[in-house]
Amino acid sequence: MAVGLHDFPLIPEIKGIRIGVAEAGIKKPNKKDVVIFELCEGASVAGVFTQNAFCAAPVRICQKHLGLSDGSRYLLINTGNANAGTGKSGLDTALKTCEVLAHETGVSVESILPFSTGVIGEPLPVAKIVAAIPKALENLSGDNWKSAGVGIMTTDTLPKGSVRTFEFEDRTFSIAGISKGAGMIRPNMATMLGYVCSDIAMDVEVLQAILKDVVNKSFNRITVDSDTSTNDSCIAVATGMAGNAKVTSVDEPLAQAFIAAFTEVMQELAHAIVRDGEGATKFVTVEVVGAAVEPDATKVAFEIAHSPLVKTALFASDPNWGRILAVVGRAGVDGLDVDRVQLHINGFEVARDGGRSPDYLEEHGKQAMAPEEIHVVLDMGMGSESDIVWTTDFSHEYVTINAEYRT
Amino acid sequence: MAVGLHDFPLIPEIKGIRIGVAEAGIKKPNKKDVVIFELCEGASVAGVFTQNAFCAAPVRICQKHLGLSDGSRYLLINTGNANAGTGKSGLDTALKTCEVLAHETGVSVESILPFSTGVIGEPLPVAKIVAAIPKALENLSGDNWKSAGVGIMTTDTLPKGSVRTFEFEDRTFSIAGISKGAGMIRPNMATMLGYVCSDIAMDVEVLQAILKDVVNKSFNRITVDSDTSTNDSCIAVATGMAGNAKVTSVDEPLAQAFIAAFTEVMQELAHAIVRDGEGATKFVTVEVVGAAVEPDATKVAFEIAHSPLVKTALFASDPNWGRILAVVGRAGVDGLDVDRVQLHINGFEVARDGGRSPDYLEEHGKQAMAPEEIHVVLDMGMGSESDIVWTTDFSHEYVTINAEYRT
Repeated sequence: MAVGLHDFPLIPEIKGIRIGVAEAGIKKPNKKDVVIFELCEGASVAGVFTQNAFCAAPVRICQKHLGLSDGSRYLLINTGNANAGTGKSGLDTALKTCEVLAHETGVSVESILPFSTGVIGEPLPVAKIVAAIPKALENLSGDNWKSAGVGIMTTDTLPKGSVRTFEFEDRTFSIAGISKGAGMIRPNMATMLGYVCSDIAMDVEVLQAILKDVVNKSFNRITVDSDTSTNDSCIAVATGMAGNAKVTSVDEPLAQAFIAAFTEVMQELAHAIVRDGEGATKFVTVEVVGAAVEPDATKVAFEIAHSPLVKTALFASDPNWGRILAVVGRAGVDGLDVDRVQLHINGFEVARDGGRSPDYLEEHGKQAMAPEEIHVVLDMGMGSESDIVWTTDFSHEYVTINAEYRT
Repeated sequence: MAVGLHDFPLIPEIKGIRIGVAEAGIKKPNKKDVVIFELCEGASVAGVFTQNAFCAAPVRICQKHLGLSDGSRYLLINTGNANAGTGKSGLDTALKTCEVLAHETGVSVESILPFSTGVIGEPLPVAKIVAAIPKALENLSGDNWKSAGVGIMTTDTLPKGSVRTFEFEDRTFSIAGISKGAGMIRPNMATMLGYVCSDIAMDVEVLQAILKDVVNKSFNRITVDSDTSTNDSCIAVATGMAGNAKVTSVDEPLAQAFIAAFTEVMQELAHAIVRDGEGATKFVTVEVVGAAVEPDATKVAFEIAHSPLVKTALFASDPNWGRILAVVGRAGVDGLDVDRVQLHINGFEVARDGGRSPDYLEEHGKQAMAPEEIHVVLDMGMGSESDIVWTTDFSHEYVTINAEYRT
């Protein structure tokens, strides 16, 4: 029951990128669960990964391989098994799949980036993945974006994609990406999983800097259930096939044009994860303004977004706004003066000066909470800093999905 | 569907304490919702209160009145309305009810301590409470403990009480208490609400010190849903009627004997809140050992207890232990070496050296997760500090209760 999630867009070929998809039968039969991205030689590849100390084996290998100068040529992705909490043997199995793909394609092992998502703590079924690799290589194509979007799904109900083009000095550039994720979503430095490719030519250091910055305005500002995944990974690829003079600084006008379009793609992919959040019936924007310092705004926004009481009230479309104030009060903000706090929901003033607004009527609250899209604006009355977080409500379906996840 | 919650115990009269109960019809008809404790002159009264900055009006008044030297004579408690998020008029309404009770009983306003619990953000129905005060005073009695336990319930399914007696130098001392709470439970300095009375004679400073210390081992170590209430209050009363020489130091042998029995009462009351947690089907003890410093153990224990993914797995009796490791990894513990982490559930070794135990079988996990009482022991492998937190699972019933709370 995704909230306002559009159909997968028509994504044209991004020059320098080919995608292959196969069914390995890792967790379920008849499910696309292995995806391979082939990147042209010389592509710039940037990545950000989970900050969870229990990060998965493939995350560790990605970080190591990305740091080498060799250049990445293939992304190897499987769903159905996260290869996390698998200790040292997890590293061996992840590396084994890289070795097989390297052998089949004639590249070095270090130019393969592996990604896994699914159940934590069970051994990776290496043989199944190895058997699927040639099948995925057979159907490599520039037109496989939607198929790849489907191939990386776990509890997602729909594949998630986004595409933008922009013009710069008579040249057209394209950016396309896919993402997945619906539960264990509280990304910290990246989400599980996002892949965004462009035909722009860009230095890898610039691409990495842009990725890190934009992730903080997109994937790192969404939360479904406060649990940071062990496998979060977000990869940006610039193939250079658009033919521009290579971007070497974020200050170049072309870099700025790229950032604008890239941010749109990244936010759309991040929002898509929230819209398809496990059991989601609402898409909620939590905007905190009037903070003394930005970290206060970020903290309060996430605390509101994580509160089970706020989330169940959202599910019920119940304007139980007192729960939001209670969260603000317990968030531990230094110097908070509750008598200056204001609250708006979908444009209705609900609370003023720390209490119910004089003009507030219960019917306003009900009207404000009725839509699928809820915009909460909390003014702390302390300064001019702000932040935005996107989240979902908490429904019966969330409990059902997560109680029955492994069955 | 309370988990292993025993019937309300037979609580004998605590000399110096009388309790009156009435129906004010604050939120629902035919529900006891006003409770008055009468304390004998000279009783020592200690209190700890919520740290939520949006603390309720009655909490502010309690803190002010407790700080005065006059001595507390009455506790005035209502359910159905929290008088929180009500701004300045909330203070006026709370004070008004104190004034009426003071007038009726001939004591000073400052010797009344008011407490409210219920919906946040709605004006306190003063007239209803004022009308109920004489009725409650009419039935003041030493035998009304169970009736008081019922009178302070909100979403609780059962009243919660605890009683202990202990002997010291041929004298018998009694400690009795009641508590309430089922949701918005993540006490910080106290819970919403607890009242514990003893006939011991004890200096108020000593009683306050003991209360603060024991709260940190009982109410401040439980969590249902991570949301700290605006109204948390825990009050300890020592009437002095047992006739002992007044305790003036925590180092006295009698103080130590009192602390032992008092801790049992406080933990039983705190556990009762968890056992009756909204929608609870499990009573879960999360014990973190092997931490380098105690705050790390506390933090990790609460993070595990708050994780929606862990809680829904507990609800399903699903040994999805990878979710527990994922929480440990994201908890932000400095210097965590995941390869040293061990996990036991109800005595079964599940994870060793950061991965699945070599001997682990899925059937062990299922067996471990089946009972209503779950004991998780997470060894961080970093040192010798530890802490314990008690919590519940996350069920459909929790969502139902909180989505329909105000209807």
